[in-house]
Amino acid sequence: MELTGPITLSDNRYGKAENRVVRVYRDSARHEIRDVNVSTVLRGDFAAAYTVGDQTKVLPTDTQKQTAYAYAKIAGPQPIEDYGLALARHFVDRTDPVHSARIEIEEYAWQRVSVNGGPHDHAWTRQGPEVRTATITVAGKDAGQRDWVIGGVKDLVLLKSTGSEFADFLVDEFTVLEPTADRMLATSLDAQWRFATVRGIDWDAAYAGIRQRMIEVFATRHSKALQQTLFEMGKAALEAYPCLAEVRLAAPNKHHFDYDLGRFGIENRGEVYHAADRPYGLIHATVARADAPDPGPAWTA
Amino acid sequence: MELTGPITLSDNRYGKAENRVVRVYRDSARHEIRDVNVSTVLRGDFAAAYTVGDQTKVLPTDTQKQTAYAYAKIAGPQPIEDYGLALARHFVDRTDPVHSARIEIEEYAWQRVSVNGGPHDHAWTRQGPEVRTATITVAGKDAGQRDWVIGGVKDLVLLKSTGSEFADFLVDEFTVLEPTADRMLATSLDAQWRFATVRGIDWDAAYAGIRQRMIEVFATRHSKALQQTLFEMGKAALEAYPCLAEVRLAAPNKHHFDYDLGRFGIENRGEVYHAADRPYGLIHATVARADAPDPGPAWTA
Amino acid sequence: MELTGPITLSDNRYGKAENRVVRVYRDSARHEIRDVNVSTVLRGDFAAAYTVGDQTKVLPTDTQKQTAYAYAKIAGPQPIEDYGLALARHFVDRTDPVHSARIEIEEYAWQRVSVNGGPHDHAWTRQGPEVRTATITVAGKDAGQRDWVIGGVKDLVLLKSTGSEFADFLVDEFTVLEPTADRMLATSLDAQWRFATVRGIDWDAAYAGIRQRMIEVFATRHSKALQQTLFEMGKAALEAYPCLAEVRLAAPNKHHFDYDLGRFGIENRGEVYHAADRPYGLIHATVARADAPDPGPAWTA
Amino acid sequence: MELTGPITLSDNRYGKAENRVVRVYRDSARHEIRDVNVSTVLRGDFAAAYTVGDQTKVLPTDTQKQTAYAYAKIAGPQPIEDYGLALARHFVDRTDPVHSARIEIEEYAWQRVSVNGGPHDHAWTRQGPEVRTATITVAGKDAGQRDWVIGGVKDLVLLKSTGSEFADFLVDEFTVLEPTADRMLATSLDAQWRFATVRGIDWDAAYAGIRQRMIEVFATRHSKALQQTLFEMGKAALEAYPCLAEVRLAAPNKHHFDYDLGRFGIENRGEVYHAADRPYGLIHATVARADAPDPGPAWTA
Repeated sequence: MELTGPITLSDNRYGKAENRVVRVYRDSARHEIRDVNVSTVLRGDFAAAYTVGDQTKVLPTDTQKQTAYAYAKIAGPQPIEDYGLALARHFVDRTDPVHSARIEIEEYAWQRVSVNGGPHDHAWTRQGPEVRTATITVAGKDAGQRDWVIGGVKDLVLLKSTGSEFADFLVDEFTVLEPTADRMLATSLDAQWRFATVRGIDWDAAYAGIRQRMIEVFATRHSKALQQTLFEMGKAALEAYPCLAEVRLAAPNKHHFDYDLGRFGIENRGEVYHAADRPYGLIHATVARADAPDPGPAWTA
Repeated sequence: MELTGPITLSDNRYGKAENRVVRVYRDSARHEIRDVNVSTVLRGDFAAAYTVGDQTKVLPTDTQKQTAYAYAKIAGPQPIEDYGLALARHFVDRTDPVHSARIEIEEYAWQRVSVNGGPHDHAWTRQGPEVRTATITVAGKDAGQRDWVIGGVKDLVLLKSTGSEFADFLVDEFTVLEPTADRMLATSLDAQWRFATVRGIDWDAAYAGIRQRMIEVFATRHSKALQQTLFEMGKAALEAYPCLAEVRLAAPNKHHFDYDLGRFGIENRGEVYHAADRPYGLIHATVARADAPDPGPAWTA
Repeated sequence: MELTGPITLSDNRYGKAENRVVRVYRDSARHEIRDVNVSTVLRGDFAAAYTVGDQTKVLPTDTQKQTAYAYAKIAGPQPIEDYGLALARHFVDRTDPVHSARIEIEEYAWQRVSVNGGPHDHAWTRQGPEVRTATITVAGKDAGQRDWVIGGVKDLVLLKSTGSEFADFLVDEFTVLEPTADRMLATSLDAQWRFATVRGIDWDAAYAGIRQRMIEVFATRHSKALQQTLFEMGKAALEAYPCLAEVRLAAPNKHHFDYDLGRFGIENRGEVYHAADRPYGLIHATVARADAPDPGPAWTA
Repeated sequence: MELTGPITLSDNRYGKAENRVVRVYRDSARHEIRDVNVSTVLRGDFAAAYTVGDQTKVLPTDTQKQTAYAYAKIAGPQPIEDYGLALARHFVDRTDPVHSARIEIEEYAWQRVSVNGGPHDHAWTRQGPEVRTATITVAGKDAGQRDWVIGGVKDLVLLKSTGSEFADFLVDEFTVLEPTADRMLATSLDAQWRFATVRGIDWDAAYAGIRQRMIEVFATRHSKALQQTLFEMGKAALEAYPCLAEVRLAAPNKHHFDYDLGRFGIENRGEVYHAADRPYGLIHATVARADAPDPGPAWTA
């Protein structure tokens, strides 16, 4: 099969990735800190840069970087969702060839150092591995402008040492797995939730509440499979937060294998495990409200 | 804005990620080796596993792993595209609830050790950092079955020490970048090319030829921007291979900054650079044939 | 200069690295978890394995792995220091050719999930990035046996947004750095402390206390340089814990550069920083008691 | 056991790590490129910076960075060993408080792009994963000055699909490993070789020759254990290069496990393997000439 049609640029985007912006609020002796990794992505009237090398409509990625740092003073980055909206609107509103802007933000958490039992004014330790995320899209000019915010968490590592089974699955010629009524369940959750609106949300409270709700469900609901657990986590977030349109979850099944100590005359009743690296199961689920508004380009990388 | 509609599972998929399969062909004293990282992803009639924990239609990810290893003997993994097609068809054809299967493969290159000027029979060194990739999708049963192959390369690190400029770009209040008529251009290319058909292709030859064609264009065409270079690389691949429907390229601009040695009375005319880590420009381009067939789910992760 | 002397094996050691052992204590409904990465290293009468391929005195690394998992039930891994001592003694005492054993352990922290304001019985989230470490060495047989424990923490990321200066340094022809009276100070601390004895120590309490003491000093003492801060942290640990012989600290100066927003008419008074990746200052300090006992092979990798 | 002696700074060093220097030689249309990662480490009269925060004898790590970039023009970085010697001597000779300097260099390889069958003048692709290394130490002033060069390679990934066995090993109560007469042997070699002198060496030729000699031995000698293979590789390097005093090798045993396909009625005679991540055997060997000169601080990190 040979194609002969004309060759065209059918899609394009560009931006500055991973601007490592740290913002200190020092209006009083008790400082605040916000530590973010910001990426900008622009779409618009940039075809000539690709097809004939014409840069006249291209806002340099270096300029995007400068703007991300400037807006850390002008409009944030606290909370990251408002900062991302301001930054995205800047590019769309101020730069004629830009049709839409997407701002992707990771926020790293810091915990105040405790000294003599109380929180210190200006010293912190990093908390992880989990990272708060936000993906903001602003598309269109003037009255036709639309905007979307997706919140999220990634690398939230969860483990439960009981309350999980896996049985009654499909069996074929290559199936050797034994069913289990009590296994360890562990994952490193990546979850993203799309807000139905970008107005009137307490972003920090929503992040904390959605995260907590999902963790509670992971902990307390008996699991017949990671699939079921993910669905229930997403469902609980939607139930608790009517401002959410949908939740997307991706979760590796971080396998912990019972170690065979019986060979050595040692009893192992779910006490000693080998934590394996690869391969791993990988489960995806999207849970949504039936009346969720149009996602538009919100999920388009 | 509060949503009140029913909450549903709107999308799902699952599989076994990163099976590290190594295959040795030892039919003669001169062994061959293929080293791959295989991920399987299934879509189908799996909703009940999520919504009520019913596993009766779920083929365990452990079974998918066993199958990937078994097919390394039965059908490959040489070349990876045929192996992926066989493995995907196995899941769709043999497992009733599976509607479509996606196989993602990375292949790591090995070079025969040279001994006394000749290639050794059974010893190799790893070649990198670049990795060959293939993404195979098979959807539908029996006569309605369709299939797609996307080839690719990732982490192909390219650098040219001249023949690149960046000037005449848009300037705004945050623009401080100076135009340059001669800069270093470096990237770590991720490129994927969709074949118009999966039949009659010499996969290994296509990989080598497409890779070489893109590298030649990178080296020899004057660059007015990374955007232009990417477009020309994709266009050249399509021109040389009429079996290709489209090429998608993602390329960080790995910035190399001229180091300011003038402060020390040392002349630096494009001789000493600092290779920066973050941030970096990130450019995406899709180049396609106007008569490209429908991509279907080929690009759907 | 050409050497002509005989070629010999002058040193050797071997072991199994990175056994990922997870231990659950489930004697009651309230489970406990310990998650460790264990490496074993043996020294002894193994020269023939190297020089003539004779394995008769070689305990396979696979056996070392089995033993690490078995001892997770027999003797730990809670606390890791006692587990390491038991495992090291096993190899030295039970395997004739082994002269000394070194056990290196990383422990990953888990925090109980909070549900309805209380800690959950069997669900956790991973805490990081910091990792607790222990390095245990046991050398010699029977009455001549000696043992050493080195505790530690790594990847403890600390930041203070004021209370740090750097000025009055040496200046030469390549010095362009400006002195500063108020800068951000950040590091990712790796610290190791050698205990003067392995008997009678409450390992968990010592870890928590030493870590806390060092963090307090980092937070509260004005810093004239990272060097000074490290010395004071180590000194404070030694002062608070007379059971410690010495503390070794390695700390990258994770540079946070004031971002130049003045170009855009925006005031930046220590509010917006760029967090750089590379290069970074790297400072090492060893702080010790004058009457510290002989370290023997405790620090020998 | 409680210690009461005075607390002192017993050791210290500091420097700038991971300066990413890229050097282009463009004296003719055919450019040359050298891409290095340089770390500087100084020892000397710096105690007051630690104990009382006095910086008057401290050459800032920023200055060390500037110097590394300046010397990329003044003295290299081609070859890296001479560049490291010049840089180390600069610090020792020009900065009074510096007693010794250690320069650690990684060099990343680039291969010229082939265009129309010939090498291109100014475009390259990165070669890896292996990295060339050099560690240079210069200690002492004036006539008492001494110097050492350690060359090396790291992340040299080697695999042989036959010609390796492991049998007749020690067996204890935890030994379940079966002996094997024909296994796959793979490693990621880190090797370092100390030169007996720093004068009169063709560094590039030595690197290429030592690397090739070790690879040949890996490929062609039957292996009774990775220990034996490492010893023979080091021995061969020393035999071929009388300018070498010793070779230190560290090599993970990258386990490739025969995959059990017999369960599925599929024969697997050393054809399908699982490449495991963790744990892995880790073997160290030092092979030296009996008449090797004093290493001094050459190996002291």
